[in-house]
Amino acid sequence: MRETLEILSETVPLRRIEVPSGARVLDWTVPPEWVVREAYAISPAGERILDVRENNLHLLGYSAPFRGTVSRAQLDAHLYSLPELPQAIPYVTSYYEPRWGFCVSHRERERLADGEYEVVIDTEHIQGALSIGEAVLPGRERGEVLISTYTCHPSLANNELSGPLVAAFLYRRVLAWGERRLTYRFVFAPETIGAIAYLALRGTHLRKRLFAGYVLTCLGTDARFTLKRSRRGDTVADRAALHALNGLREPPRVLDFFPTGSDERQYCSPGFNLPVASVMRSVYGEYPEYHTSLDNRELISIAALRESIDVYESILRALDQNVRYVSRAPMGEPQLSRRGLYDTLGTRENGAFAEALLWVLNYADGEHDLLGVAEMSGIALEELARAGEAACKAGLLGQQVLQGVGKAALPGCGREVVAFADPPVRAGDA
Amino acid sequence: MRETLEILSETVPLRRIEVPSGARVLDWTVPPEWVVREAYAISPAGERILDVRENNLHLLGYSAPFRGTVSRAQLDAHLYSLPELPQAIPYVTSYYEPRWGFCVSHRERERLADGEYEVVIDTEHIQGALSIGEAVLPGRERGEVLISTYTCHPSLANNELSGPLVAAFLYRRVLAWGERRLTYRFVFAPETIGAIAYLALRGTHLRKRLFAGYVLTCLGTDARFTLKRSRRGDTVADRAALHALNGLREPPRVLDFFPTGSDERQYCSPGFNLPVASVMRSVYGEYPEYHTSLDNRELISIAALRESIDVYESILRALDQNVRYVSRAPMGEPQLSRRGLYDTLGTRENGAFAEALLWVLNYADGEHDLLGVAEMSGIALEELARAGEAACKAGLLGQQVLQGVGKAALPGCGREVVAFADPPVRAGDA
Amino acid sequence: MRETLEILSETVPLRRIEVPSGARVLDWTVPPEWVVREAYAISPAGERILDVRENNLHLLGYSAPFRGTVSRAQLDAHLYSLPELPQAIPYVTSYYEPRWGFCVSHRERERLADGEYEVVIDTEHIQGALSIGEAVLPGRERGEVLISTYTCHPSLANNELSGPLVAAFLYRRVLAWGERRLTYRFVFAPETIGAIAYLALRGTHLRKRLFAGYVLTCLGTDARFTLKRSRRGDTVADRAALHALNGLREPPRVLDFFPTGSDERQYCSPGFNLPVASVMRSVYGEYPEYHTSLDNRELISIAALRESIDVYESILRALDQNVRYVSRAPMGEPQLSRRGLYDTLGTRENGAFAEALLWVLNYADGEHDLLGVAEMSGIALEELARAGEAACKAGLLGQQVLQGVGKAALPGCGREVVAFADPPVRAGDA
Repeated sequence: MRETLEILSETVPLRRIEVPSGARVLDWTVPPEWVVREAYAISPAGERILDVRENNLHLLGYSAPFRGTVSRAQLDAHLYSLPELPQAIPYVTSYYEPRWGFCVSHRERERLADGEYEVVIDTEHIQGALSIGEAVLPGRERGEVLISTYTCHPSLANNELSGPLVAAFLYRRVLAWGERRLTYRFVFAPETIGAIAYLALRGTHLRKRLFAGYVLTCLGTDARFTLKRSRRGDTVADRAALHALNGLREPPRVLDFFPTGSDERQYCSPGFNLPVASVMRSVYGEYPEYHTSLDNRELISIAALRESIDVYESILRALDQNVRYVSRAPMGEPQLSRRGLYDTLGTRENGAFAEALLWVLNYADGEHDLLGVAEMSGIALEELARAGEAACKAGLLGQQVLQGVGKAALPGCGREVVAFADPPVRAGDA
Repeated sequence: MRETLEILSETVPLRRIEVPSGARVLDWTVPPEWVVREAYAISPAGERILDVRENNLHLLGYSAPFRGTVSRAQLDAHLYSLPELPQAIPYVTSYYEPRWGFCVSHRERERLADGEYEVVIDTEHIQGALSIGEAVLPGRERGEVLISTYTCHPSLANNELSGPLVAAFLYRRVLAWGERRLTYRFVFAPETIGAIAYLALRGTHLRKRLFAGYVLTCLGTDARFTLKRSRRGDTVADRAALHALNGLREPPRVLDFFPTGSDERQYCSPGFNLPVASVMRSVYGEYPEYHTSLDNRELISIAALRESIDVYESILRALDQNVRYVSRAPMGEPQLSRRGLYDTLGTRENGAFAEALLWVLNYADGEHDLLGVAEMSGIALEELARAGEAACKAGLLGQQVLQGVGKAALPGCGREVVAFADPPVRAGDA
Repeated sequence: MRETLEILSETVPLRRIEVPSGARVLDWTVPPEWVVREAYAISPAGERILDVRENNLHLLGYSAPFRGTVSRAQLDAHLYSLPELPQAIPYVTSYYEPRWGFCVSHRERERLADGEYEVVIDTEHIQGALSIGEAVLPGRERGEVLISTYTCHPSLANNELSGPLVAAFLYRRVLAWGERRLTYRFVFAPETIGAIAYLALRGTHLRKRLFAGYVLTCLGTDARFTLKRSRRGDTVADRAALHALNGLREPPRVLDFFPTGSDERQYCSPGFNLPVASVMRSVYGEYPEYHTSLDNRELISIAALRESIDVYESILRALDQNVRYVSRAPMGEPQLSRRGLYDTLGTRENGAFAEALLWVLNYADGEHDLLGVAEMSGIALEELARAGEAACKAGLLGQQVLQGVGKAALPGCGREVVAFADPPVRAGDA
């Protein structure tokens, strides 16, 4: 975990958060830290097998230590393999029950000869800490976008090296924008317990500030994109993702939220109910190599990862451009020609700019955002944003500023309330 | 009517409610009680015809008394028949205008010879009472389910012996459950005036307590099931019915509410607007035998009646299982393995129980009921109920208790308010 | 403009509103009045060409004055033509930038010989006024219907002589009804600035009283009808239009609101957001002759205009009949036979009147209007209105009276509030 965060730090300047073993985080307790020194067996023929150094899937995740000589049959009770996928080493863990064991391809398991095996599992569960990496790119407004990914799957490629890789390079893309309206928060943590620990630390902040969030996972293959909606289903996180995905050559698959899967389970638990969705490609549980040694470097490609980064960047751009305007001249159309915003020659059609401008002005009611106007009008978000900026400069529009958003519904509360604590700012600020 | 209630009492222990003639019930007045002693005519050939003892449809419903000798033509003015269905005796009534008359098959009517007919209609309209039968199976909570059916159609089978029969045996099914969350109220009354009188007596109570209700009618044929929705259209009565009907081999027909039909007209009048739907088979007005002597024993079958009982039982079961949970650990997922509710070995998939449990926990927000979770997840309601009970026992969930439900919208009020007067109870109570 | 209003006054008794040049109207200023005395050129061959007396499209709308001799090339810089439609003189204006110019068919333009042209444009921009014609037919209630059309397109037929013609004859149709529930307001004004000036004068009134409105334009061809929805999308203006259009042989085309087009842009600007829709035939911008000399008498027909009048009359009739009833006997069905409203003989079916009556009574909850009941029941609005009137006479229904309607959402306000300031009146008033 820590080595992974070190390597990622070459790309993202990660602040490290260490949550000590034994800490209470929401309903959970951070477990002891797992130290692996070595793990292998010596076969009756004297061969070193099941060596964690050869493939770190060989050791049962969080395995208890063990040292001793066991028969073939005794060893077998501690082996995990997949008869239906005989060449694959499965990824198996036992976090909350002490067990020792090895994961092995079914083919290798069947070839194990009778006789005595010397087993060495030199692991320790120490009073340590759970490590989370965090990086924040602050924006002009207080609204935040969360990019959450996980780092705990050993040597697995699509699920889950692809998530941290896309997140790290996405960070650099957003950094390169220069100007940001929103704040972008990147989180790298072990799955489940990491997200829970992070929510224990930042949950109150996120409930006040989170505008949209995504769990980045399963992004390494060239499968078409899938949107798993947030629990609320129609948040700006869902809408921005759909906006970007609908612009691709291949239409996305769209799934309603389901409370199994990855860390969206935590972000979308009923007490938080945050606007967190997930855009994936080959989805966990759905592809044959999932959670096995076959989910490796061969399965993913740099081209696919880059495409995933592109897609997420376009989602974040849509979010950043997705302002809500409030008209300063809402009674009738404002006189645009007087302000140099309209062709003074009336002919058979409006130009594209005037068209975009009329849409932005008409829906500058504080209720429609630019994504909504883009959906209604079929005009590109960038074109609408350009028109909106021109109208702001001309004093025709003010922009609503997100001061505190995403106040999630608590159980028992019927509806979310999006608070805009401060009054809309003047056009010049936009 | 009273004999019908006597016979039904062999199956359901009916409490008798007698509403005296002349009583004001809502906008109506209970009419005098109709006593029929004998009714027939003697033909010119001396044959006794149109005898109510032979077929009690022969006498016009609520007929005035008459005794006298009339010509063929004079008699004809008092005969009711159906030229388009010449072999059928129609069911005709004249409750609110004094008339004497006979109903007769058109074939028989045409065969009536010229000559003098002696008519004897020995009826009387006395200061009596309207009889209603009622049986209540109390449950743990105050929410109620109404089963309403009618008993006034003389000698008719699908419409309407089938309704009382299904209601009576449904009573025994619910009784056999042993445990009930909800209270089940069974009502047997004459159509329209009976429902109106019952609402005059119990309407205030039902507006406070009614969770769901059904008018049981037209349940004797093997036609596929039809749901006629409640006036509100998407109450739990509608949803539970759809849940059960969608599980059948043949998909149901679904009709929006219409204010003609049977006693749902009264329960769904705008001032009550109760959550009352109706699940039927061959629907009133739609089958040729409707309201004639052809709607008889031949038209219905014991097998079809039993299937109707099965369907209604599964609807009531869905209602009884359809709780709303409130999570006691809504922030993040609760740690299930610590409570023995989750497989401690992490592999490629969750078991069915864990899957159901995650759904129930995530939607334990007091807003979603188990029917809703079943619809979203595709998991069987029983499986979700099992998971919910386990989570209750583990202290993870509390259950909302229906203390007063179904407060109907009054005219002028925009929305229904479902009141949960008491706070949610502890998990152990569930 | 003024001549147009004079001619229309033969059909509609128009009250003239004059808004002086320089007046501030909302965000705009009424421009100087344009006086055209003559405009033409003399070709090198001595021929009088581009004469506004021959076709008033020849002069650039609002052209600055000019007098002088110019070369062929100099003249060309002031000519407007359509290469893609070489036989058409385009309709071009320059209201907000002083320019002089002529509009000419591309064919004629290409035939213009080299040499000197004498140009005479004798126009003047004086301190005058903008003229609006208005006629109001008052009704029993305060709710109003707006019929708005425009009069500024010179010599154009579909867009835009058809609008004023249909509006004028529609006035006479409504007048001929004799009895009116609603108030009907007819407005004839130049496009954009006229609607803006009218809103400056009557906007506050319209926000309080407007029940429904329509912009009448593009109604002269026999193309099928198109409904352009109001900005709110589902107002009674939209619903009444759909009700009438769905009764036609050819189903209508339905477009969501878009903030380009005609004066609905002003009425539906975010600060007013009035319930104003538009029913058209060959829609502006969509037919090739649009805004050219080809949009002339040949393109339209009297039969088509009459059909457009018929359609609008049926829309207005639907609005006038579209009351909301409040039941005075909402608990259970009222006893209709006692009031002579129901057949006393109970047979196999209800008559059409009883059917309509039961629908009206059941939905007399102050929330459903008769249009809604017609949609649900499939019963004709007229039939429902008849039943409603009978029930009113019998004291069973009261009618909600529109005292102030159409309070539009202001920017920042989430929802519209329709105020019914006075209590519902008694049935006898209806």
